[in-house]
Amino acid sequence: MRFVSFEKNGKAVLGIRDGEQVRVLGEETLESLLTRGVDLCAYAKDHASDEKVAANGLKLLPPLQRPPKIICVGLNFADHTSESKYEQPDYPTLFFRVHTSLIAHEQPMVRPAVSDSEGLDYEGEIAVVLGKGGRHITKDDALSHVAGYSVFNDGSVREYQFKTPQWTVGKNFDGTGAFGPDLVTADELPPGVKGLRLETRLNGEVVQSASTDEMVFDVPTLISIISEAITLEAGDVIVSGTPSGIGWARTPKLLMKAGDVCEITVEKIGTLTNVIVDEVKG
Amino acid sequence: MRFVSFEKNGKAVLGIRDGEQVRVLGEETLESLLTRGVDLCAYAKDHASDEKVAANGLKLLPPLQRPPKIICVGLNFADHTSESKYEQPDYPTLFFRVHTSLIAHEQPMVRPAVSDSEGLDYEGEIAVVLGKGGRHITKDDALSHVAGYSVFNDGSVREYQFKTPQWTVGKNFDGTGAFGPDLVTADELPPGVKGLRLETRLNGEVVQSASTDEMVFDVPTLISIISEAITLEAGDVIVSGTPSGIGWARTPKLLMKAGDVCEITVEKIGTLTNVIVDEVKG
Repeated sequence: MRFVSFEKNGKAVLGIRDGEQVRVLGEETLESLLTRGVDLCAYAKDHASDEKVAANGLKLLPPLQRPPKIICVGLNFADHTSESKYEQPDYPTLFFRVHTSLIAHEQPMVRPAVSDSEGLDYEGEIAVVLGKGGRHITKDDALSHVAGYSVFNDGSVREYQFKTPQWTVGKNFDGTGAFGPDLVTADELPPGVKGLRLETRLNGEVVQSASTDEMVFDVPTLISIISEAITLEAGDVIVSGTPSGIGWARTPKLLMKAGDVCEITVEKIGTLTNVIVDEVKG
Repeated sequence: MRFVSFEKNGKAVLGIRDGEQVRVLGEETLESLLTRGVDLCAYAKDHASDEKVAANGLKLLPPLQRPPKIICVGLNFADHTSESKYEQPDYPTLFFRVHTSLIAHEQPMVRPAVSDSEGLDYEGEIAVVLGKGGRHITKDDALSHVAGYSVFNDGSVREYQFKTPQWTVGKNFDGTGAFGPDLVTADELPPGVKGLRLETRLNGEVVQSASTDEMVFDVPTLISIISEAITLEAGDVIVSGTPSGIGWARTPKLLMKAGDVCEITVEKIGTLTNVIVDEVKG
């Protein structure tokens, strides 16, 4: 099933995408359902109303607006590690995003107004949403902890990412983490999203293209390794890393500017589209 | 006022420390009060019950158990930057902690069982708790956003911190982020906690000692700079950085092991004490 979160009368509403329409489930959030241990597909069957709304024109929200954690994985495609001038680590390179950075499909991605932040860059990725938490999860058991998958644009303000030894601030500007459009439940996809094509387009031109098979640490390995250190929780999101082709590594650099359209398509999951705007300081 | 969070019949209860006793305020959390915009001191005056319990023997919780964000600042004392072999950045070095890593005063700090994690290290710090959020907060206005201060031990699993270019995993093992004992409201302390002595002791021996005046980025500057990028929220915690003296930078290294007692005292704020235990894998 394909879950969509959208805004209606200022409230978050959950629905199921059904072709061009969305069947309304009610005022509910995926993070709340997942935290309560609810099975999403069973919930959808029980709570599907007769109300259908046109998918087109809905004001989408990120599939989860306040996940307990957003764990991002850097350097998870060897070609990207190499274009970024890092040595490939033999352990996942982790950093966190916070919810204040999230935007939805078709919401504008914001290039910040701070004077030295020309370098807003795209990073097409797959988001893994956990349905069950745990610690010391084995690789064999890891996929049973996944509720579903979505698309993520880990929009990065490069000058800030490299101002200090830690990337965090460059990865957490408000309005830079695009997430959506749908949460596609794991049963609709190949196990661990193996063998899917991930493609990023900037103004229609393909700038990143890779198979998920090229991930250095695949989805079960990520879940297992992260849970050796950190208790994972239902609703946690793992943003699994970007392939080569980022704008910052090109000569000349390809930076996103107001009016640009960035689209990320993951085969069988969907296309996440965001237009770039310049921040307007209030 | 000095707020303490503690557990009673499995529930989080809030109280006010009054010498050897704690006056009970009720089942409430600081993060919930702060998120609702409640003034803590006014709330305490309105809700103080007649019930007093002995402070000694209470099972304390971290002052906030689930802050919206825990923003840590690395390399914020020049001597520490130098012992860590980094160049001093001219921008705060930020990384996040997640709530699953938090423990309270007198809760054991956990040295993980993963085989290559000998290096559990202490980092005495001051935690700044925000009472009011915002974006693009000016330095002049920054201190009006602070609700209070507490003590933090940014327990670091060094081998994991340095496995990849990002420190995140080494800073987020379960049971490594000690926070407490009290939240001391800002009105009881010098503005921006200027001029306070921060001291860490391992088994009674002083291993870190510095004045908060030595911070590269002081509290108002941190709030202002972070808010240029990230919307700050009431209840956010800024863990403001550690001075020199960490165990990992010594020759030979001084690593914490089971049975060790780590105490961090910040003048006028309090002493945070944790005993080290080895993780027992279930």
